[in-house]
Amino acid sequence: MQVLPEAVSKLLTSLTKLPGIGPKSAQRIAFYLVKAPREEIQLFYQALKEVGEKIKHCSICGFYAEGEVCKICQDASRDRSTICVVEKPQDVIALERTSYRGLYHVLQGSLSPLSGKTPQDLSIEELLQRIQKGNIKEVILATSPSVDGEVTALFIARKLRTFPIKISIVARGLPLGGDLELADELTLAQALEGRKELHVD
Amino acid sequence: MQVLPEAVSKLLTSLTKLPGIGPKSAQRIAFYLVKAPREEIQLFYQALKEVGEKIKHCSICGFYAEGEVCKICQDASRDRSTICVVEKPQDVIALERTSYRGLYHVLQGSLSPLSGKTPQDLSIEELLQRIQKGNIKEVILATSPSVDGEVTALFIARKLRTFPIKISIVARGLPLGGDLELADELTLAQALEGRKELHVD
Ligand SMILES: [Zn+2]
Ligand SMILES: [Zn+2]
Repeated sequence: MQVLPEAVSKLLTSLTKLPGIGPKSAQRIAFYLVKAPREEIQLFYQALKEVGEKIKHCSICGFYAEGEVCKICQDASRDRSTICVVEKPQDVIALERTSYRGLYHVLQGSLSPLSGKTPQDLSIEELLQRIQKGNIKEVILATSPSVDGEVTALFIARKLRTFPIKISIVARGLPLGGDLELADELTLAQALEGRKELHVD
Repeated sequence: MQVLPEAVSKLLTSLTKLPGIGPKSAQRIAFYLVKAPREEIQLFYQALKEVGEKIKHCSICGFYAEGEVCKICQDASRDRSTICVVEKPQDVIALERTSYRGLYHVLQGSLSPLSGKTPQDLSIEELLQRIQKGNIKEVILATSPSVDGEVTALFIARKLRTFPIKISIVARGLPLGGDLELADELTLAQALEGRKELHVD
């Protein structure tokens, strides 16, 4: 496509790298953008620039943050005695669609023999430190309803059993092998509601 | 989604405006970008910025250009005696996949009673001026194989009949109601090859 202006070619290259965007979609989007109002493009690239420069993981919970600490950890109106443990930031967004208004802890993955993820690769140590500081009454394990997710939940439950806190796991109404992120909000709300206390030894 | 950092929310808003991108895809892309290497994001927003600031329509043919004149009109190695008339810039890209190496003229639309597009809305006057300057031996009409496309081709053919040039229309091997932009290159190449001279009165 050497007849295209450099900028359009470069934009096509960038678009093709995005998940779920094939060459045809990339072309459709690029030509849409070329014709789009200048202001719309400006807003788009400024958001991209900011995401690239400013977004990091919250130093407390691991969710996305623009500064050191995310909006959720900063929010004094939330129930600060409950931590919901999830695998990835997207899961936080899914759970925020329910009425849950406690805190979160993002593990940044799950224990997986296949991908070789070990407890050291997840933020489990950070979770223990948060609980050691006190004030936590319940930890809700909301890992994905997959084999890896179950293994991760059980591993953490065992790590936590010495603490005087309630440990629960969200009800598995979700089909095994599914992805928590993709669950509809009703299913998620029910899964949260039906959580059971875990007793491990 | 008020728990998301401002930049990520803004990025989601921008992504949702793109054609073919629903809320789920926008979210998938946004979270991909948040985790993507900084350099990839940088390339992406720089391309976007350049598209927003630099891309305009070629002052000669109407195709995309970074300066005043597009790469095709600047290319001295092309056959400068043939102009292929198309509706939109994307059609140029489709035709460039064939062996055609003449010039183009982008009408920026087609005559359409429904959308209210009239000859004044298209760059027909500019096409006539290009031909008046001489050196053009043939005008190939490659409007889309739709009713509007046919009407537009015939309208232009009538406008051109006083000039001592050959006027042809690409063979319609394409199904009526289709979009030239979406045609595969073989069909397009054949349609170009089988073009017929038009005789109007
Ligand atoms: Zn946080
Ligand atoms: Zn041009």
